Amino acid sequence: MSLLLDNQFKELPPDKSVDTKTFLEAVAHLPSFFDCLGSKVFSVIKSDINGNIVKITAVYNKNPAKYVTLQDILEAEREEHEVVWPKVGATLALMWLKRGLRFIQILLQSLADGEKDENNPNLIKVNVTKAYEQALKKYHGWVVQKIFTAALIAAPYKSNFLKALSKGEEVKEEDCLANVRQFLVNYTATVDAIYEMYANLNAELDYTV
Amino acid sequence: MSLLLDNQFKELPPDKSVDTKTFLEAVAHLPSFFDCLGSKVFSVIKSDINGNIVKITAVYNKNPAKYVTLQDILEAEREEHEVVWPKVGATLALMWLKRGLRFIQILLQSLADGEKDENNPNLIKVNVTKAYEQALKKYHGWVVQKIFTAALIAAPYKSNFLKALSKGEEVKEEDCLANVRQFLVNYTATVDAIYEMYANLNAELDYTV
Ligand SMILES: CCCCCCCCCCCCC/C=C/[C@@H](O)[C@H](CO[C@@H]1O[C@H](CO)[C@H](O)[C@H](OS(=O)(=O)O)[C@H]1O)NC(=O)CCCCCCCCCCC
Ligand SMILES: CCCCCCCCCCCCC/C=C/[C@@H](O)[C@H](CO[C@@H]1O[C@H](CO)[C@H](O)[C@H](OS(=O)(=O)O)[C@H]1O)NC(=O)CCCCCCCCCCC
Repeated sequence: MSLLLDNQFKELPPDKSVDTKTFLEAVAHLPSFFDCLGSKVFSVIKSDINGNIVKITAVYNKNPAKYVTLQDILEAEREEHEVVWPKVGATLALMWLKRGLRFIQILLQSLADGEKDENNPNLIKVNVTKAYEQALKKYHGWVVQKIFTAALIAAPYKSNFLKALSKGEEVKEEDCLANVRQFLVNYTATVDAIYEMYANLNAELDYTV
Repeated sequence: MSLLLDNQFKELPPDKSVDTKTFLEAVAHLPSFFDCLGSKVFSVIKSDINGNIVKITAVYNKNPAKYVTLQDILEAEREEHEVVWPKVGATLALMWLKRGLRFIQILLQSLADGEKDENNPNLIKVNVTKAYEQALKKYHGWVVQKIFTAALIAAPYKSNFLKALSKGEEVKEEDCLANVRQFLVNYTATVDAIYEMYANLNAELDYTV
């Protein structure tokens, strides 16, 4: 059925800890989200995000019993790499990954909320730009920001994007957006929990690339 | 000493065949050329080119005795993948790699020839643009062309670029350019020979990305 609903995120427990294994399983399907944007240009982003996931997975696999939750990983790395932490290991990979996840979240939420350019209702530029500004822009220097603006012209039409999210099936826009809304429930909660964890552990950095 | 002179290309034999092993050894150092451009933005290009080299190396390593020259690889792949060739395997990887090599060649040649923007003699925009237009532009769709234009603002000053080519040592511009000229002799001959081989074997494609 839908790319999103096939790979739902799990509900968080009351303490909002994120189970590493479950998270990695759910997140493994997200890089293909960028294929839905159509242009091969976005494969660069896909591989950046994929690299984050590979890195976190490699750390987890070294000792699954030790790294049950994402917080376990951050705390262990904080001890292990005192001086350079948090700009290291899975802590750094998840720092960036969460920004990509937030980008996806805001983009989907904006579409689900029906935000649109009234003059060009079939364009997703306003939604992509909103997501970029809130999730990523401040971590990008002016060159990458300019590249974003250039890449924006490769953004697909809304109808094509929603169709791709539905794995190419002809789904009514409203049905697709209903799927998106359902997906966003646990997904947003998970992304929020990761952001909170970074804030609590003082693990957030704001250098630009 | 210099990034380039440490890794000279070998002189070609009279029949202009390119020895695979020698070529792969020489070319392995070129991805770090893109570090000389300074900005991390160019790491995307570095890894694309690196991917090409990895792919050709993997094919070569499967049977070094069979793939003595680059032409041996192309001819073997042409037989093996009749229908999809040349858009396949090491043939495809080398098709793109040679364009990156040509880009580097034209950029360095243009610098060595003293081509410059008289109003901004310490900028390399004119040289980079010339190299892009002759080596790559026609293989890029308008989105990637726009991204190139945006990325161009990250191009370093000539003085910093030449310093990086000299591995950070303070070398006089003229000395560095003399090194570049020496490097270009066998390098250009090798790149030319690969282009000729693609023309002769009818292995060139002109699709855009
Ligand atoms: C021929 C001409 C070509 C010219 C050259 C052009 C090159 C263009 C390159 C543009 C940049 C592409 C985006 C990638 C940006 C990345 O640089 C950043 C930071 O990336 C992080 O960096 C860390 C170190 O600082 C670690 O290495 C992380 O790796 S680690 O795992 O090793 O720790 C890594 O993810 N990631 C990001 O900004 C994340 C981006 C997320 C998604 C963005 C969605 C945007 C969608 C846009 C839709 C319109
Ligand atoms: C947050 C916002 C982010 C928005 C997203 C931005 C993303 C930007 C991405 C821009 C493109 C980066 C350049 C890479 C382009 C590549 O797409 C092409 C073709 O690449 C080839 O494709 C083949 C299939 O068709 C095979 O996969 C080849 O792989 S195979 O080995 O598997 O067969 C592969 O090399 N290579 C190229 O065009 C080669 C480029 C060579 C060097 C260029 C030098 C330029 C220097 C510029 C200086 C100013």
